[in-house]
Order: sequence, then C-alpha cells, then structure tokens
Amino acid sequence: MSAAVGSPGAQGAAGESEERQLAWAYLSRVVLGPCPALSALIDSVGVREAARAVRESSLPEVLRAATEHRRELDLAARDIETMQGLGGRLVTPDDPEWPAWRILGLAQLTPGRDPDGAVPLVLWVRGDRCLAELTERALAVVGARCSTGYGDRVTGTICGELAANGWTIVSGAAFGIDGMAHRAALAVGGATIAVLACGTDRPYPAQHDRLLARIAETGLVISEYPPGTPARKHHFLARNRLVAALSDAVLVVEAGVRSGARNTVKWARRIGRPALAVPGSVDSAASAGCHRMIRDGEAVLVGGVDDVVAEAAPLHLPLAAGPQGWPAARLGTVEARVYAALPAAGGRWPHQLCAETGLAPGEVRAALAALDLSDSARCGGEGWFRTEHTAASSPE
Amino acid sequence: MSAAVGSPGAQGAAGESEERQLAWAYLSRVVLGPCPALSALIDSVGVREAARAVRESSLPEVLRAATEHRRELDLAARDIETMQGLGGRLVTPDDPEWPAWRILGLAQLTPGRDPDGAVPLVLWVRGDRCLAELTERALAVVGARCSTGYGDRVTGTICGELAANGWTIVSGAAFGIDGMAHRAALAVGGATIAVLACGTDRPYPAQHDRLLARIAETGLVISEYPPGTPARKHHFLARNRLVAALSDAVLVVEAGVRSGARNTVKWARRIGRPALAVPGSVDSAASAGCHRMIRDGEAVLVGGVDDVVAEAAPLHLPLAAGPQGWPAARLGTVEARVYAALPAAGGRWPHQLCAETGLAPGEVRAALAALDLSDSARCGGEGWFRTEHTAASSPE
Repeated sequence: MSAAVGSPGAQGAAGESEERQLAWAYLSRVVLGPCPALSALIDSVGVREAARAVRESSLPEVLRAATEHRRELDLAARDIETMQGLGGRLVTPDDPEWPAWRILGLAQLTPGRDPDGAVPLVLWVRGDRCLAELTERALAVVGARCSTGYGDRVTGTICGELAANGWTIVSGAAFGIDGMAHRAALAVGGATIAVLACGTDRPYPAQHDRLLARIAETGLVISEYPPGTPARKHHFLARNRLVAALSDAVLVVEAGVRSGARNTVKWARRIGRPALAVPGSVDSAASAGCHRMIRDGEAVLVGGVDDVVAEAAPLHLPLAAGPQGWPAARLGTVEARVYAALPAAGGRWPHQLCAETGLAPGEVRAALAALDLSDSARCGGEGWFRTEHTAASSPE
Repeated sequence: MSAAVGSPGAQGAAGESEERQLAWAYLSRVVLGPCPALSALIDSVGVREAARAVRESSLPEVLRAATEHRRELDLAARDIETMQGLGGRLVTPDDPEWPAWRILGLAQLTPGRDPDGAVPLVLWVRGDRCLAELTERALAVVGARCSTGYGDRVTGTICGELAANGWTIVSGAAFGIDGMAHRAALAVGGATIAVLACGTDRPYPAQHDRLLARIAETGLVISEYPPGTPARKHHFLARNRLVAALSDAVLVVEAGVRSGARNTVKWARRIGRPALAVPGSVDSAASAGCHRMIRDGEAVLVGGVDDVVAEAAPLHLPLAAGPQGWPAARLGTVEARVYAALPAAGGRWPHQLCAETGLAPGEVRAALAALDLSDSARCGGEGWFRTEHTAASSPE
C-alpha cells in the first residue's frame, strides 16, 4: 500500500527503497525487539506510514505504550552507517535475503497465545553471506555454558561433520557448547551463524570478541537489536526463538536441568522443528537436562551425526546427497499430496496448502522444502507453484 | 480331572501329590523347556494322565515328535533327589509358590503367534525363599557381558538401593551387568534371583560358581531345565522371557547394538512390562544398544533409581512406602475402573476384566496388583473379587 505513494521512476524507486530502510531502522530502535502490534500495523499500512504514525504518536493505545519511550529517538541513518562500517547491513522483510521461509514458523504462531513468539521486525546482520541461503540447511546447536570435555568433544564431532557437508551451524555464541559449535564449523571452513541478544557490534560475551569477528568473516553475526543495544535478560529468550526458527532442528548436547537450552527446545517444538538431545553419563549434571527432555518426550535421543541427519534433514536425505541428486521419483506420500495441491500457474501459500491437504504446517513446510530441492516447485509472488522439470522457466 | 482318580484319604492325597510331582519331573526332562502343546494337554487331562500318554506315546503327532526322543528316560525320582541334595526343589503349577501371577503375562500370549512365549512347565529351584513372594516386587536387570566401569557403577547404585528397599533383583548370572546386579543385591543383604539357561546344579558361567552358591543361600537360583542339563543356545532366549516375566520391569544398563538384552526387552514389551534403559556416553559401544532402544521407543530412558521406581512400581508407589502403608483412598482411575468391575462374591479372571473395562492386560494386571497390595481385592478359585477392608474373611 505504501509502495503506491510517490514512486515515479527508477530514481524514485531507489529513494523509496532507502526511505523504507530508514523507516525499518527507526522502528527497530523504537521497539528494540519483536513487537507483534507494530508488525501488524506495518502489514496493514506499510512501513513508512507506520513509522510516520509512531513518530506522531497517532496510534492505538497498545502501540502508544510500546513506542512512547523512544519514538523521538531517530538514529536510523547513523545505525545503518554503523553497520556498514562493520561490514554489515540491515535486512528487512523487503530484502530478497530476508529468511521469510524460516520465519514462517513464527508467523504461524497465534500472537495471543504466544506473545513472545512474534516475527522479528528486522535483522541487523554482520558478514557477507546471504542470510536466506545460509539458513537453507541449518542445525541449531545449543547447550550448557559449563560444558564438559565430553560435551565439547561430541559438539565438535557432530558440528564439524555437518558443517563440512554444507550444513550451517546456528548458535548463540555463549560459553561452552555454543562456542564449541561455532568453532567446530569454522575449523572445517563451514558456515556458522551467531544470533546475539545484543547489538552485533557488541561482543557478548566479551571473551568471544575474536570468535565473533571470525564468524562474521565467513558466516554471519545477526541480531534483532540495533547496534549498541546491550544484552538484556528478556532478549535471551527472544533470541532463542530466532535460533530455533532459523534452523531445521535444534540439537542440545549438554544441559543442566535448569538450562536455557530447554527454552530453545520449547521454541523448536512450538514452531514444528525437531528437538534432539545427546545423552551422556547419568552421573553428569551436564547431561541431566538432556536426559529429562528425552524422557519427557521433549527431545529425541541422538547418538551421533547420522541420527541428527535422519531427524533434521527434510525427508531424511542422506548426508552425502546434494540437492541436485534428489530425484522427483522419490517423492513420498506427503510431498505427493502437497504437489497435487499446487497450481501450475499463480500460487498457493503454505496456510492454504495446510487447509487443502489437511496436513500440519510442519509437514507442508518440509514437503515444500523437498519439492523445492527436487525442482518440483518454486515460490513466486503469489505463493508456491509447480515447475516443469525440463523447463527452467518461471512464471515470474 | 486326574485328581478324581483314587484319592481315598490323607495318605492317598500325599501319595497323589508325590505322583504328580514325579509326573511333572518326568515330563520336564522329556521336553527340556517350554512346550505349549504339552502344557495344553496337561491343562486338559491333568499331569498324571499326560505323563502316561507320553510314556505310551498315545499322542497327537505334534506331541509325539516333541517327546519321542526322551520319553523312555524317567529320571524323575533321581532329579527330585538331586535337587533336594542341593537344598532345592521342584516347583510346579500345583504349588502355592508357583508364580502364577507373573506367568500370567506369558499365558496371555497367543501360542500360534508367540510359539517361544509359552508358560514354563515347571521351575527347578535352589534356595529357601518362596518364589511367588520373592517375585512380588522385582526388577530384572540385564546388559552387556563386557560392561564398562560406568555400567558396573550405575548397576551397583540402582540395584543396591532397590534391593535395600525390598525389591528383588532378577538377572541371568552372566558376566558383566548381570553379575554386578546380583552382587549389588547381595551386598546390601537384599534378595536376588538368578534365572539359568541350564540345570541349577551347573554353575554357568563356571567362574560364577561361588556367586551362584551365594545367591542360592539368600535368594533363588532357578531354571526350567532339570539338573544336569547343559546350557544350549536356544535356552538363553527362552530364559530371557522368564527373566522378563518374573519382574515388574526390565532395566538395561549397558548393551551393544547386538545385545541379548534387546531380546529380554522384546519379551518385556510383549508381556506388558515396562522396558527401561540407562543412557551413557555416545562414544561408548556399551551404551549404543541402550541409545538405540530409547530412540526407537523400545525402552524408556532412566537416569537413576527414582526414574526406575517411577516406571516400574505399580501405580508409582514411592520407594519408601511398604505395601501396608498404601491407602485405598489413593486409588487411581484405572484401579477404580477395575475395582468397579470386581464382584463381591464369586470372581472374575483378568481376561474377563479386560473385556469388561476395555483396559489392556498390562493395565488390568497392574491395577489388580495395586488392589491386592491395598487389600482391596483378592484372588480365589473363581478369580478376583473385592474384599472388605475391615474384614479379613475370604469366601474360600
């Protein structure tokens, strides 16, 4: 809707794009994190109009309360410049690299029931890689800050092997399992994403300053919060939902009974991602949380990389098989049902496919990912549609 | 039926009892292990008549084949004497200590579908304790012959604590986890039962000669096979079903991927006993079988004695509470349903209660055990019936 306002040509389009960037950046600093009411407003009136309404405080009560503290603070241009100085950028729902696919899981949560599960407004990103591409096949690996030698070793083995095979390792850059997961990916020249609970210019924890810099060199350091934002307690819980949402599955290697990893697992389950846990000695407090999650059916026991791939890979693709090697003839029942519901022209959105097939969102999502990998389906401006295997043409 | 033949008085009754013992002993050596067809014949014509038919080979074809090799071999009197010399005895379905309750699980299997799951014909028993009593609250503990220090330690902790709290530890006297389980029970003065795949006079393995002697002193060493029978390969699989049947649950502490423990777990699941497994390091081959069973849903992960009690104890009785301390007011839904289906006079058999309540055999069995413990129900000649809590009278 807002796109209709004053866009007379290419020059105007570039100007509009910049304006929209500034509006997103401004709003990101006003709300500092996810804000379902603001996302809803942007969806309905567009980001520039939403920014204007916030500035002028011409808002419904719920949004006025959420924005009044910082609505007069417009550091948008400076924040974007700061990110550019760090070799970073602001990624918004306008950008092709916005991981819309991943965030779909959060978008499907009921805002009333899951107020914390809102979609992120924007993502502040350090690093050159494309965020959407890097999260195409990703495993979240989380766990105890006080990991043991056993947990570190298992993390290193699993993350090293997966990263060497093209998986991205997503974690939170904390001490212990998180740090080990990032390092194992870096060690094999693989991709890794650190999701922070503070601005991406702030090394948190400070001792991981160099580790974060290395991650930004070959992978990505991302955050919902604009540069300079300090880590706050509730940011960590919000961060955990992003770690889960950006990944195919969440793996907990070690966790005490009161571990934050359980929060990430809770998110994984809410948005339909498999939650996996590594067992260990029953004498080890660092494995007690894993054992409890396995016992309570919150996580599936995995004994190594093969188990992880079997649970996390869409349709249980073998580790070595690349996307290209996946023949359409191997379509399973679920994929066949989703494929049958896809139009050859136009498109269907996942929620429509759920309604038509009677499948769960997670099933439809996995089936679409598989159909995409096998070149049987693509997503365009009107949703998902079938492709012809022989033709490379797209209706767009 | 056979009981009607010549029993003119007490003298005759004693003679008849001895005759029946000899018939059981004779048949045990003829078939060497479970024989569903023979059990069915005994059920229908009585043990003495069945023994006569076997001796004379006046049998249907299926039974002729199963008995012809040793039908002329009658060492019944000598076998019973041998057992007496070892401080043992022959326990048959005629005896009050016959663990009918436990064997019910096997009796409920369909002979056609589970030919190996037959009820035992008899049990040759060394030790003074009452078999039925000793298996009232029992945990089977099985696992790798090549156990690790970790597995031994966990076995010792769990079995020691349970045995000290009145649980009987049932195992197979093998090297590794089995031996450790027996020793842990003996060490705290607790009860333990070794179920052998050979005659109870044969120490198997030979290095466990002294261990078996100690078990017989305070617990029981039992076998389906008459004295002198060597251990054969198929005896071990048959033995495993007895280990499972005589217990409330089967716990696997360590097991390789091709462990015999998995066979015992398979039996546990077939007859409705919980199967439990202890996790360990994913690097340990001795835990790989446990992890697989947990992952495949064949066993529930347990991290210690509390988890074992929660899964294995009927109605999750707390560890310290004795049967007497269990108030009827704590009857759960399932027990209440079974109780409601019980008559005050006469009786109902478990399969009738299953049909009436719609509950699974395992649920009915657990509920009856709980009702029995709380003095709410008893089993008489016509099946299970309600008792009055204030009266000790029984309709028998």
